[in-house]
Amino acid sequence: MTMKSDSSKSPEPLPRLLSTIQSPVDLKKLHRSDLPELAQEIRDVLISRLSVTGGHLGPNLGVVELSIALHYVFDSPTDKFTFDVSHQGYVHKMLTGRASEIHTIRTHDGLNGYLLRTESEHDCYGAGHAGTAVSAALGMASARDLAGKDFDVVAVAGDAAFTCGITLEALNNITDTTKKFIVVLNDNEWSIDKNVGALARHFNGLQTSATYSSVRSKTADIVEKFGGMGARKLAHKLEQGAKNLLAPSVLFEKFGIRYFGPIDGHNIGILVDTFEYLRDQDEPVVLHIITEKGRGYTPALDNPGKFHGLGAYKIEDGSTAAASLPTFSEIFGRKLTNFAKKDPKITAITAAMPGGTKLDIFKDELNERYFDVGIAEEHAALFACGQACESFRPFLTIYSTFMQRAYDMIIHDMALQSLPVRLCMDRAGLSGDDGPTHHGLFDIGYLRVVPGIIHMQPKDEDEFVDMLWTMANYDDGPTAIRYPRGAGVGAKVKDEPALLTIGEAELIQEGTDVCLIGLGHLFELAVEAKDKLEAQGYSVCLINPRWIKPLDAKLITEKAAQCKVVCTFEDHVLPNGFGASIIELLSDADIPTKVERIGWPDAFVEHGKVDILREIHGITAENAIQLVSKHLG
Amino acid sequence: MTMKSDSSKSPEPLPRLLSTIQSPVDLKKLHRSDLPELAQEIRDVLISRLSVTGGHLGPNLGVVELSIALHYVFDSPTDKFTFDVSHQGYVHKMLTGRASEIHTIRTHDGLNGYLLRTESEHDCYGAGHAGTAVSAALGMASARDLAGKDFDVVAVAGDAAFTCGITLEALNNITDTTKKFIVVLNDNEWSIDKNVGALARHFNGLQTSATYSSVRSKTADIVEKFGGMGARKLAHKLEQGAKNLLAPSVLFEKFGIRYFGPIDGHNIGILVDTFEYLRDQDEPVVLHIITEKGRGYTPALDNPGKFHGLGAYKIEDGSTAAASLPTFSEIFGRKLTNFAKKDPKITAITAAMPGGTKLDIFKDELNERYFDVGIAEEHAALFACGQACESFRPFLTIYSTFMQRAYDMIIHDMALQSLPVRLCMDRAGLSGDDGPTHHGLFDIGYLRVVPGIIHMQPKDEDEFVDMLWTMANYDDGPTAIRYPRGAGVGAKVKDEPALLTIGEAELIQEGTDVCLIGLGHLFELAVEAKDKLEAQGYSVCLINPRWIKPLDAKLITEKAAQCKVVCTFEDHVLPNGFGASIIELLSDADIPTKVERIGWPDAFVEHGKVDILREIHGITAENAIQLVSKHLG
Repeated sequence: MTMKSDSSKSPEPLPRLLSTIQSPVDLKKLHRSDLPELAQEIRDVLISRLSVTGGHLGPNLGVVELSIALHYVFDSPTDKFTFDVSHQGYVHKMLTGRASEIHTIRTHDGLNGYLLRTESEHDCYGAGHAGTAVSAALGMASARDLAGKDFDVVAVAGDAAFTCGITLEALNNITDTTKKFIVVLNDNEWSIDKNVGALARHFNGLQTSATYSSVRSKTADIVEKFGGMGARKLAHKLEQGAKNLLAPSVLFEKFGIRYFGPIDGHNIGILVDTFEYLRDQDEPVVLHIITEKGRGYTPALDNPGKFHGLGAYKIEDGSTAAASLPTFSEIFGRKLTNFAKKDPKITAITAAMPGGTKLDIFKDELNERYFDVGIAEEHAALFACGQACESFRPFLTIYSTFMQRAYDMIIHDMALQSLPVRLCMDRAGLSGDDGPTHHGLFDIGYLRVVPGIIHMQPKDEDEFVDMLWTMANYDDGPTAIRYPRGAGVGAKVKDEPALLTIGEAELIQEGTDVCLIGLGHLFELAVEAKDKLEAQGYSVCLINPRWIKPLDAKLITEKAAQCKVVCTFEDHVLPNGFGASIIELLSDADIPTKVERIGWPDAFVEHGKVDILREIHGITAENAIQLVSKHLG
Repeated sequence: MTMKSDSSKSPEPLPRLLSTIQSPVDLKKLHRSDLPELAQEIRDVLISRLSVTGGHLGPNLGVVELSIALHYVFDSPTDKFTFDVSHQGYVHKMLTGRASEIHTIRTHDGLNGYLLRTESEHDCYGAGHAGTAVSAALGMASARDLAGKDFDVVAVAGDAAFTCGITLEALNNITDTTKKFIVVLNDNEWSIDKNVGALARHFNGLQTSATYSSVRSKTADIVEKFGGMGARKLAHKLEQGAKNLLAPSVLFEKFGIRYFGPIDGHNIGILVDTFEYLRDQDEPVVLHIITEKGRGYTPALDNPGKFHGLGAYKIEDGSTAAASLPTFSEIFGRKLTNFAKKDPKITAITAAMPGGTKLDIFKDELNERYFDVGIAEEHAALFACGQACESFRPFLTIYSTFMQRAYDMIIHDMALQSLPVRLCMDRAGLSGDDGPTHHGLFDIGYLRVVPGIIHMQPKDEDEFVDMLWTMANYDDGPTAIRYPRGAGVGAKVKDEPALLTIGEAELIQEGTDVCLIGLGHLFELAVEAKDKLEAQGYSVCLINPRWIKPLDAKLITEKAAQCKVVCTFEDHVLPNGFGASIIELLSDADIPTKVERIGWPDAFVEHGKVDILREIHGITAENAIQLVSKHLG
């Protein structure tokens, strides 16, 4: 189902105030009293337009006032804002000349769903992974100081980013680096899923406590009372109120950073006053604001997990179309839970993604063996290693692109010590709409250098479950499985999984002209190419390789030697990819058969629907046929 | 210069008490009053034996009492100790049956310089990289709880490990995970080099303050006074003293962990009492101990940076033999400093390794543009990205093996955004004595999948400087250079560096039988093979490839096509290595010339002298000649 035709519809005109804003300069022309109306307009546009394209609705509804206040007080692009993950950057995009394009977001040739340096001079730092905003901003601040400039740098990070060690590493370096730096802690009690850990409880305690309610009403009073008296006095009072009443100040002050807040992140007046005050401080500060994810849209408030990021929905009730086939993630969540019911040694670990990985199924049924460690992939991997040392069978479930964060642990802790951690790499291959920060196109390359690791990819849902079962029962070292976003081909899953033999590929059929090797979900392209080549009269050998490491060297060399050309299919970049490993294998075995390869180029692939991108980049059966035909005379 | 003959000398017999200890069971037979004498014996043995083999003397002298107290109170291997980095594990090794082998440490076939699960049942977790001890221990504790067991888990981490985000991620997860967990913060004010950041200042403030001195003398008093009265009362007093007087308690309590200390880490009595008390707590605790790196050996106390880890030294004065040639690191430190004096945009960033990387030279001369961010490779990489956004020219200097920690940032932040961060990967290739946790054998594989990155390796010191200069002047995206531990071939470095053309290899000589392509410092093996092959009458083409990515496709395909066989040389594992990229190149270009490869196998390479390991694994000119001879008829 593609949204392309829908999303390219010409949208209704922009509302009154928003239509006047081509850049932050225009925003500053508005009177302060106009800003709440602008906020409402932006919410209406977001809710309406994203209902067609989908996108990160909840996070953006939560930062409408924050984004307006930042651009009202500071001067982008001279002043710099970094947004952690940057999925909450839609409002920023609308205020920096891109409001009329917001209906194209996440569509091919449209706006990217994240900040992108190449998209606008106002996007000073791109992101898609969490925990980078404070560090990158600190680098900019240090460069500014060295260059003798004086612009402002503001890092905006959600409370979940503080479960990520990088953010804490950055906090530890602020006072040694600069005197002029603003961190906004956007506290909404949620990352993508419910936030975890001691610090989260610490922040969250604030929001629910009587103390906080009292602060919130007091700050509102103060704004009313001192609104005309200047921000300095106001901010001073806020600071004192917080210092006396509340605890997070202490944490930040351990890092040498002055703490302000918490303040109501949906009150533009107080945000503007506070930023005007903080801009003039001569020491690093953190401003703690409280916001609601999904603010202003009841379905999103009722279900913040779903509305963190989603596809098209009905505006009236927020309902979305039901999928026809279960996703790989759903099958994973269900089957792993079943396995774990029979095997008390199985545990499940996620880095803040129970919904995306569908480990929420496991959590609901086997909560004791479910571990959400926060946005902390490195810790997650080491925690899994510790469990494996004690003969447990941890399934570490992390998207392929985020597994890059745990790369050192895969080498230094799992593989070197032969610890049987199971790496479940969801969203392997092209992620589609999310674009290059989320594509999982590098994991074959980075894992194949790792000695002793077992790496596999299933051709369909049934084989996926067999592989998971095989991983569960392999205790001699780390295993990894890559599987794509979304649904498979609809293969029926057996009731009882089969144990596969590691390193044994599946020979589908023999042939003597072309040997097609289709890895994982691209096996379907190999089948399509086979059918067409056979229709042309060629004899086609078809292999489902199953194992990326170790390769089935015997079968592949034997079948390749019998053919005139080999063609590999992979949802991965070509350099150091699966096809490259076949070339290496055949070269070492002195098999001269030519290898042609279908896969992604040595470049970052843009965002868009998967079918569009495959067509553009030649990930098609037609292209395979064209490539092999050269060698068939 | 090899130490092999020296280190294999039969050592003098072990001293009185130590000679009785074959396992921790024997240690427990000693009377408490014997323990200080045992500590002295261990110090004497360490100072004496490491003077021959070299090793991590300072850290081990600092943890003699701690290691004795842990093994005296707890029951290894039932109870588990994890040691962060684990270079401080020599004393632990001596107390767990390996005292008589300590003279073999870091030598081939001798003890590993770090903990190794395969070396002893008492080494429950191996390490070589920092920041893993608390996370892995927490995984063990969670597995213990799930299994309904009740052994103790103690994670020992230095103060520097708290600059590493992983440790903080782990702290954030302790209270959600278990009620029974002990963290020992071994505070010696030093990591390998001087510790940095707000937290370090925070810890260090303690040691120098009058408050701390007062606590220290008070705790000594208490031990004397209450020594016989049981540990509970003592520990309670210590805790109260600390809580009232000192600050770090607050930091840990933000993470929900009860704080004890600081106590004198060289007082065995107080350590034993405290561990006996902490063992019985029903909540996670952190014990803050103060130790001296190099305790008991004046040269090490006087120069803790040098004695963190070093080669053989004279016992009398700690002097070491002067090296005959400058190391790559020294050349790097000197030349980068020179470049930076002329270019105000150059900055230097290290993750707690100014001595090892020789950025201390830069620090001394250009302190303003020098940034030590702590053991925080991820933050370091992002901080560099932020500087690059502001048109600075950051040189991010991290050992190849530690660069694995920043892998996600290399892809997601540097390459995707084309930010010109310069990755200076010291200790690329085999690290030798340090063993598999420190070998830099994977970076070609993991970087070659990254779109747009430039990756290079110099054949000698002069080309090294040319490459650094070329990197300094390349602003279109990230560049990476790999260079080995130790000295080069002694090539004379030009006064003024040359700007190299990216992707242009150096053709040393033409030839028509064999094409030898020697990458980086293994170019010398290619030269050796060339001489021998020429002596046998063959015509040899010799190429210094310079660029790993992009390859000089034109030159290499042209010369390979003219020869009967190609042989590549790389200090890297073979899968997805440099030779593999040549195979891929020739296959795509339809050049059928066979490629033979010299490099490390698809396995973790053990520790030992480089020349020994090269011989064992066939990284030799002789092996190359044997491989190519098969194709020369």
